[in-house]
Amino acid sequence: VFVNRMPRYEILSPDAVDVLERGWKRIVTEIGIDFVHDEAVELFRRSGQKIDGTVVHLDPDFVLETIKTVPPVFDLRARNQARTARIGGHHMAFTAVSGPPFFRAGDVRREGTFDDLQQVVKLVQHFDALDLPGTPSVEPNDLPLDSRHLDMTYLYATMTDKAFFGSALSEVNALDCIEMARILHRGLPLHDPAPAGGGPPVTSMLSVVNVNSPLRYDTRMLEALLTYARAGQASVVTPFLLMGAMAPVSVPSAIAQQTAEALAGVVLTQLVNPGCPVIFGSFLSTIDMQSGSPAFGGPESAKGLFASGQLARHYGLPWRAGGGSLTASQTCDAQAAYEGFNTMLSSFLAGPNLMMQSAGWLESGLVACLEKFIVDVEFLHTLQEQFTSLEIDEASLAFEAHDEVKHGGHFLGAAHTMERFRTCFYRPFLSSTENYERWVRKGARDTTARAGEQWREALEKYEQPLLDESIREELAEYVTRRRRELGD
Amino acid sequence: VFVNRMPRYEILSPDAVDVLERGWKRIVTEIGIDFVHDEAVELFRRSGQKIDGTVVHLDPDFVLETIKTVPPVFDLRARNQARTARIGGHHMAFTAVSGPPFFRAGDVRREGTFDDLQQVVKLVQHFDALDLPGTPSVEPNDLPLDSRHLDMTYLYATMTDKAFFGSALSEVNALDCIEMARILHRGLPLHDPAPAGGGPPVTSMLSVVNVNSPLRYDTRMLEALLTYARAGQASVVTPFLLMGAMAPVSVPSAIAQQTAEALAGVVLTQLVNPGCPVIFGSFLSTIDMQSGSPAFGGPESAKGLFASGQLARHYGLPWRAGGGSLTASQTCDAQAAYEGFNTMLSSFLAGPNLMMQSAGWLESGLVACLEKFIVDVEFLHTLQEQFTSLEIDEASLAFEAHDEVKHGGHFLGAAHTMERFRTCFYRPFLSSTENYERWVRKGARDTTARAGEQWREALEKYEQPLLDESIREELAEYVTRRRRELGD
Repeated sequence: VFVNRMPRYEILSPDAVDVLERGWKRIVTEIGIDFVHDEAVELFRRSGQKIDGTVVHLDPDFVLETIKTVPPVFDLRARNQARTARIGGHHMAFTAVSGPPFFRAGDVRREGTFDDLQQVVKLVQHFDALDLPGTPSVEPNDLPLDSRHLDMTYLYATMTDKAFFGSALSEVNALDCIEMARILHRGLPLHDPAPAGGGPPVTSMLSVVNVNSPLRYDTRMLEALLTYARAGQASVVTPFLLMGAMAPVSVPSAIAQQTAEALAGVVLTQLVNPGCPVIFGSFLSTIDMQSGSPAFGGPESAKGLFASGQLARHYGLPWRAGGGSLTASQTCDAQAAYEGFNTMLSSFLAGPNLMMQSAGWLESGLVACLEKFIVDVEFLHTLQEQFTSLEIDEASLAFEAHDEVKHGGHFLGAAHTMERFRTCFYRPFLSSTENYERWVRKGARDTTARAGEQWREALEKYEQPLLDESIREELAEYVTRRRRELGD
Repeated sequence: VFVNRMPRYEILSPDAVDVLERGWKRIVTEIGIDFVHDEAVELFRRSGQKIDGTVVHLDPDFVLETIKTVPPVFDLRARNQARTARIGGHHMAFTAVSGPPFFRAGDVRREGTFDDLQQVVKLVQHFDALDLPGTPSVEPNDLPLDSRHLDMTYLYATMTDKAFFGSALSEVNALDCIEMARILHRGLPLHDPAPAGGGPPVTSMLSVVNVNSPLRYDTRMLEALLTYARAGQASVVTPFLLMGAMAPVSVPSAIAQQTAEALAGVVLTQLVNPGCPVIFGSFLSTIDMQSGSPAFGGPESAKGLFASGQLARHYGLPWRAGGGSLTASQTCDAQAAYEGFNTMLSSFLAGPNLMMQSAGWLESGLVACLEKFIVDVEFLHTLQEQFTSLEIDEASLAFEAHDEVKHGGHFLGAAHTMERFRTCFYRPFLSSTENYERWVRKGARDTTARAGEQWREALEKYEQPLLDESIREELAEYVTRRRRELGD
């Protein structure tokens, strides 16, 4: 997992933080959060909150007191221990695109299939810059709806050795994913609040619980949230806010709402299981007010990222930024690149601990695109280097190089250069510096065409990570049995 | 001129600043700067610096003392007073691409012509986001070499009412540009150190003096620098550093070199004319160490921008960032967009007072491209909005909107939204949020194709700004007379 030791870009004055804090406090107190789930409401009632039907009016002091049990840092276990993802502090974990129903590669654009998902998962395994596949990176529309969470979890467990998400669509799904994590991590506790060898709490599965914004958690999401929390598994509690639709057309107002919604969900996880790992989620963008379509990569979402990160740190919570590399563009072109890059660089500046939608997102998230995936991996490589601190000391001044070259010469052959030329600069794998004539001779392939070659090459190089055969068999048997039980 | 009141992104600790300071001091003292010009050397000798042939060994205390007369803020006069560009403080002025020999628009790629330059200048005049055309935005290869500075200056004076650059290729060119500025700004002093009505010093012309890095100023550049300084006209003293070629393969080393070179040139302007406006220039990138080709938009140049801005502020000098929207890409594709956006967003974070190469740069600066120009204007619009501070107060929380919509509804029809929907969000003019089917129906035009429509539309909408006919005639007569004298 990448460690971002560069400064955070903070835009909120202490006064502004106070205003936003008053904002979410007033929302949770006066309007309240709707939890459409009996047990959730009961948990809040027992802790002394004011209930009105399914609406919970929260005492802000209770909220701030309750979130104190959230671990500021935790480890998300991968079956390859070296790939266990630390979440919190200066650490940043990156996940591929999540949720798109469509798949695009080359000239093909179609409904996603299980085979398409497999391709994305292979790419995630191949590229070290990514820590987890998406949830899922493309919807396997060719599999039966009720049991596809089994196939997907089996896929993640066998095709990668990285950490992965569990399904949060229902209680049944959550329980299956937890059981499969138990099989995969045989002999290890699913949740270890205080590992014997030291280090932060460890958990085995991450799930994304989206708020049904504004100010409502629906029944199925709450079922999953409660199920995972009981098992000590981490949730990413995420208000999904497009300003103009699910939030007011004002960044401060949306930030206040986001904080109210996310903190309320975080509190619920701690009521179920104090100390359970949980992530303060955010996903904030706008809609195009002329068409009502979502818009990404604009100035409002960048400012929202800066403010969200600052507030998450203010409350001492691990923080997820929505994306990543977000764009409304229909194809992997200049717009896809600049909208995606604006979201991603602004995210690095804001410093999330989990950055979702970091590779492959296209068409406002409707499409998982392999060319865009490659472009985004180039972004990740670039920005991981860009957010690695410069070492500035006497040696870095390389006075001897200046003394060698002196006036009007060049450094190409200087001793200092010769010793370092292989590693001195970031080396892109997608970008080209070829001169025009050579580029034309070689076929005038633009970035997207080159990205198409890169994902094909990466798929060829993909190697399935070894897995204990008895664990694989046990997972397969679980899938077969449960599929039958679910009637698929 | 845009005012950037967002925080600067600073990555240097006080210790790091000290190390870099020791770095440039050692360079100017021990290695010295080569000034290939008798008068320049004589000025340094008279001020007590140690001279060795044409190499000037500078006393760092003398450097720091001498730059104290540089105005931290000045106004660069435009003939339309509303477009006078304030340089310094939180102000950021933007100029179009400068220097490319080639021109590209649509499928055409050719040697630039005067007509091509005219098109770029019209676009600069059309888009408010830009404050000056380039120097020149494309080389008019179809005009005689010795007199084309006359035609270009006439073009800028008549086709725009914005401020513009003077030629720094020779003393003759500089003197002609100064005379033409005198004609254009009839009755006004070319340099007004203390305007009667208050405000910062005013100057009428800006020129770019590139250092012949490493550590050398050549004769022609010094002629221009001295000529402009005598007339109280501003220079942008710019080390043009590609690490690996003109600087060592180390960002701190290159920053020390850049500071040594730029400060030495700034000092010279103050020896000629204390109080003369001058800008600390920077242009820092890398070469591809495999091919030797220049590379742009990478992590090293971003860190260089952050460090350069911080040092320029440390010395209290107006600062120029190299670009802008820099890329090595051969075409206006995803790479052009992400490299350009990385440079430009990093520049906004670093906070230059003059940002050159802000629109139209392609192919490592060999090409002025009209499609890229439009893409870059979209960047400028986005980032000027992104770097406008959020107002965070009680009203911005829009509690009444939350109170109206409450739980699980939407804000599309809320009163707060209805009152603001026209202006609440940044509206891109190039980016598209159309859904895929509609986008395909309308011709599946990618960003570059749409940019092609946009520059054509902008050229149609271009209106030549009115200019006093007697001034225009006087400029034309000057051009005719001087062209004859120069033998073209």
